[in-house]
Amino acid sequence: MSRFFSEKYASLEPYVPGEQPQDRKYIKLNTNESPFPPSPLAQSEAAKELNRLELYSDPVSGALRRELASFYRIGTDEVLAVNGSDEALDLAVMAFCDGKTPAVFPDITYGFYKVAADVYGVPYEEIPLDEDLRIRPEDYFHSGKTVFIANPNAPTGIALPLESIEKIIAGNPDNVVVVDEAYADFGGESAIPLIPRYENLIVVRTFSKSHSMAGARLGFIAGNAELIRDLDTVRFSTNPYNVNRVTMAAGIGALRDQEYTAKNIRTIVENREFLEKELSGLGFGFPGSSANFVFARHPRVSGETLYRTLKERGILVRHFTAPRIREYIRITVGSREELEALLAALRDIIKEEQK
Amino acid sequence: MSRFFSEKYASLEPYVPGEQPQDRKYIKLNTNESPFPPSPLAQSEAAKELNRLELYSDPVSGALRRELASFYRIGTDEVLAVNGSDEALDLAVMAFCDGKTPAVFPDITYGFYKVAADVYGVPYEEIPLDEDLRIRPEDYFHSGKTVFIANPNAPTGIALPLESIEKIIAGNPDNVVVVDEAYADFGGESAIPLIPRYENLIVVRTFSKSHSMAGARLGFIAGNAELIRDLDTVRFSTNPYNVNRVTMAAGIGALRDQEYTAKNIRTIVENREFLEKELSGLGFGFPGSSANFVFARHPRVSGETLYRTLKERGILVRHFTAPRIREYIRITVGSREELEALLAALRDIIKEEQK
Repeated sequence: MSRFFSEKYASLEPYVPGEQPQDRKYIKLNTNESPFPPSPLAQSEAAKELNRLELYSDPVSGALRRELASFYRIGTDEVLAVNGSDEALDLAVMAFCDGKTPAVFPDITYGFYKVAADVYGVPYEEIPLDEDLRIRPEDYFHSGKTVFIANPNAPTGIALPLESIEKIIAGNPDNVVVVDEAYADFGGESAIPLIPRYENLIVVRTFSKSHSMAGARLGFIAGNAELIRDLDTVRFSTNPYNVNRVTMAAGIGALRDQEYTAKNIRTIVENREFLEKELSGLGFGFPGSSANFVFARHPRVSGETLYRTLKERGILVRHFTAPRIREYIRITVGSREELEALLAALRDIIKEEQK
Repeated sequence: MSRFFSEKYASLEPYVPGEQPQDRKYIKLNTNESPFPPSPLAQSEAAKELNRLELYSDPVSGALRRELASFYRIGTDEVLAVNGSDEALDLAVMAFCDGKTPAVFPDITYGFYKVAADVYGVPYEEIPLDEDLRIRPEDYFHSGKTVFIANPNAPTGIALPLESIEKIIAGNPDNVVVVDEAYADFGGESAIPLIPRYENLIVVRTFSKSHSMAGARLGFIAGNAELIRDLDTVRFSTNPYNVNRVTMAAGIGALRDQEYTAKNIRTIVENREFLEKELSGLGFGFPGSSANFVFARHPRVSGETLYRTLKERGILVRHFTAPRIREYIRITVGSREELEALLAALRDIIKEEQK
């Protein structure tokens, strides 16, 4: 820390992303990327922008917003494009949290919520998941705080039914509820259809997972038009040209190629079922996943050992050190070949450990 | 404003970007874009990423940082890539300004500094330019504030010599000095070579202008390694994957094709000299520009009239309404053809107004 750094960050602990080796040598099952490239239409639309990058991107992302609005059957004033869904969360904390309105989220959830609250000095409450790692909706009623709920939750993969999400929204009429649907396409029920009925709902979405565009950085926020306007006020005050031309075009292409996305989602769900079945056979326990990852633990091999020995064998999975979940590893549902390699390695590791 | 919006933004006025018509029908001389497409190498390097966008971008932009460090002869720990230079300014305000350390900048300068201070509740002082619209370096000595200086300044186009910049840096040993060099490639002297000598200097740069990449959103910050680490702490807490894969690759390609950039800069400087000579002939007055734009006023036609009548004729220039500069228009140095069209229109407009 330099002597010029603002004192307000004295105890800030930045978010630590999953390992991102740039050499592609690992089987990467640690950051929930898609095993498939982006849609050919996304690629070709993106390619058209490369020789006109001298022009600024549209600061209101008009064409992309219209495409999103049409696809999700909401108004163009009910959607806002962002440079990855982390930016959406950052804007939501800035706009709807402060000293008077803290944030609240589960103790086990996406780690970025806490960091985004911390960096703005926003107080927050972490509500423990129940003993089965589930969110209890009633814990969030009348919270007096801005509620952040990932649905499905990460890293557990457990989804709440839409009915429960709606109860949380209805149960906080004087606070904003942020539903983070990064993984919803793999098995969750989206809250987007609730937008016309609730003035306090925003839904955060990403193109990183189901649209295979993690490297393009595209997310969006859907919600009540007034909330969107507030978020846009903050966006224009922090980074007015936040989404680049190539990414916007790729997003439009991806939205127009739903067949491709739907096929990939089906394959990932099939692979998830295969992975869960095989993990069961190896003695692993896990909550049923509604996402593109499985959060699993083994009764006899620690999470740390699983993570470390898989890495030695060239396979990356994600391991968290928080006490409640340190026996788990989070495994991205990759291609069938990647999962076969993982399972072969796990068989060996478990055999070794039992010796 | 929704009833959920944090009270702290009650009086926030977001940045208003120059008009960005998306249909390309205008001759666009209003946002200082390059008239040339990005380098063919930038385009081909970017194209290679399109079929691997399913993988996250490197959150530390390692390859791009190495390329920048090598080109600018600084350490890889003395540079940080960002999603456009506005993000750099946003991070600098977050990291180095607060209630105890206000910001200071000229009264006439890039409008985003004020917005970035406002959004974080940072107090700021605006120091008037002198009667010739010049920055007086001594006004910034021992400021007790974080200093933001655009060099060349916008929208005036006037550059300070490096000697004056160094005096400002040396004159603020206990505060960070942010030198915004968005336009430096067109005639300014870069402060990057001063980095090893000053622990309080950061230089903000963009690929938008001289590298023809406004639509790709790429900027970087060069500075003392400790300051870079502080900025990175904030970046990892707000948007860890801030730069996408395509943009990183385009940036690397652009840096490796300096011949292309140098040729474009030469052409723009020639076109600027042509534009200044012709504007003089039409009676316009302007400070000599070191940037890719000319900030000019006419003794008999108001800035508002010039802006409006040019727009009616399909030519966009930038007009600001602040009292000291409302008689000026800011004209981007476009292609020779664009400038010929502009000058023909100006001749007509001036003739009309004189009737």
